[in-house]
Amino acid sequence: MSIDLLLQNIIEKQNPSVAGLDPQLSYIPEPILNASQKKYGASFEGAADAILTYNKGLIDALCDIVPAVKPQSAFYELYGCPGETALHETMCYAKEKGMYVIADVKRNDIGNTAAAYAKAYLGETDVFGAKLRAYPADCATVNAYLGSDGITPFLAECEKGRMIFVLVKTSNPSSGEFQDRILDDGKTLFETVAQQVEAWGEPLRGTYGYSACGAVVGATYPEELCALRKKMPHTCFLVPGYGAQGGGAKDIVGAFDENGLGAIINSSRGILCAWQKTGNPDYQDAARKEALRMKEEILSVLGGKIG
Amino acid sequence: MSIDLLLQNIIEKQNPSVAGLDPQLSYIPEPILNASQKKYGASFEGAADAILTYNKGLIDALCDIVPAVKPQSAFYELYGCPGETALHETMCYAKEKGMYVIADVKRNDIGNTAAAYAKAYLGETDVFGAKLRAYPADCATVNAYLGSDGITPFLAECEKGRMIFVLVKTSNPSSGEFQDRILDDGKTLFETVAQQVEAWGEPLRGTYGYSACGAVVGATYPEELCALRKKMPHTCFLVPGYGAQGGGAKDIVGAFDENGLGAIINSSRGILCAWQKTGNPDYQDAARKEALRMKEEILSVLGGKIG
Repeated sequence: MSIDLLLQNIIEKQNPSVAGLDPQLSYIPEPILNASQKKYGASFEGAADAILTYNKGLIDALCDIVPAVKPQSAFYELYGCPGETALHETMCYAKEKGMYVIADVKRNDIGNTAAAYAKAYLGETDVFGAKLRAYPADCATVNAYLGSDGITPFLAECEKGRMIFVLVKTSNPSSGEFQDRILDDGKTLFETVAQQVEAWGEPLRGTYGYSACGAVVGATYPEELCALRKKMPHTCFLVPGYGAQGGGAKDIVGAFDENGLGAIINSSRGILCAWQKTGNPDYQDAARKEALRMKEEILSVLGGKIG
Repeated sequence: MSIDLLLQNIIEKQNPSVAGLDPQLSYIPEPILNASQKKYGASFEGAADAILTYNKGLIDALCDIVPAVKPQSAFYELYGCPGETALHETMCYAKEKGMYVIADVKRNDIGNTAAAYAKAYLGETDVFGAKLRAYPADCATVNAYLGSDGITPFLAECEKGRMIFVLVKTSNPSSGEFQDRILDDGKTLFETVAQQVEAWGEPLRGTYGYSACGAVVGATYPEELCALRKKMPHTCFLVPGYGAQGGGAKDIVGAFDENGLGAIINSSRGILCAWQKTGNPDYQDAARKEALRMKEEILSVLGGKIG
């Protein structure tokens, strides 16, 4: 069960955090950009080469202290097919280095189409009788606006050992426009989605009591995070919004259970841009130091031990 | 304004329909599959080659009678980077043949990330000072669960001449699980999203009175479709669910205004699998005949003329 693998990685590294790999060219040190531009010119191949070099450096710097990476597919699709090749190579490299890979794709569709997305990121593709993996992720993020028809094909991959995180309460300022609306039974929309997520996960619980159907809940709404932790006792949370978006350690403590399990906190810009923020020319060293600082900060509010 | 281009294409061809390019290998005639397998083996390259050959044949057969194509990205991502190259080539070929291209990607995210998706499908990517297009679509489908933060970056591309369709009421059986829930003001969630879509489109209206911010509304819910047409007088509808999903011509008539404008009806399997359904070994001929049959069927319920 992929949720067990994630939690084992977290316990082993005593670090419930994930490095968001959202590589913008402006985050990448000049020497890497120059080398790629020299090799491939001002092309998608050049951008993709720089991104892959940068990502591999980050993975090398983080793989023994951070349990997971979360590449955000938008920043690879932006560079067309070469960018998507870099996404694939990044996932392969992270897997090679023992990291858990969360494909942040927020995919959503119905029936056959949802099944195609689920197979693309979590399953296998049948090509003339051969079974191939398009993107070797352990887990993907999904959007549930279309209801169960959109989620069931992903749950089928979870049954075979993968995992999903369903968007419940997102970290952005306007997340309340629809998610906070109160339905006629007095519950908000996000609470209604949350209830369904807990139900979808019921047959998919692992060793630690958490299911393979997780939820995305933002650090920027700490009260909602706390309340959802109580209402979703078997649902692991992927928590964006820590750091650059304004969420601090005190804001995310409510995402965890009494054993310090049940959540994984994402940091993207905090880690990716640490070298720019600190003036450290070694981006790997700066990323590692920031990841360790974040780990200590989270551990301190969790009483020093996880699991 | 891209909405004007779409409506002009529809009026010129007197055909308010779009061919959904959702290519599964099982839809593709044996000779194409065999040739690609022989060339590339049981690989993603082989699958992608077959898909591209099949798509180009469909585009050749349809481009003078159907105004638009809607490739569904899941069926390209399923074949990894070679599949995505086929998606790119399909879009380029359709543009070359004068077709309007709707990227059915249902993307959703916030801030920078939503902007990266918007640029990837509708805008330009800046690479070392060069401005490049990742995927040359005219229009993309998006999911609004994250609120305005997720839509605004797409609207910025609409201001520069592109278009989006926002998921409002989807065609699948479980679409009601969340979309039909009644909020505390008595409106359903999908009506609430609909109202917001009409508002997002307000500054983006074109020559025909329709805005560049359209809505996805399923043919399988004809009453809701009718009601939304009245409530969203400036919003063009992309209507899935016709044909294979059970919606017929009488179900989609309510999507149109009194001039036969305001909607585009999608057919995927109906056109793609016409050769299998009719036993016609010429898939191009079968697709063309089905597209003409569908055009006549829709025109007949619209009084014979559009625009």
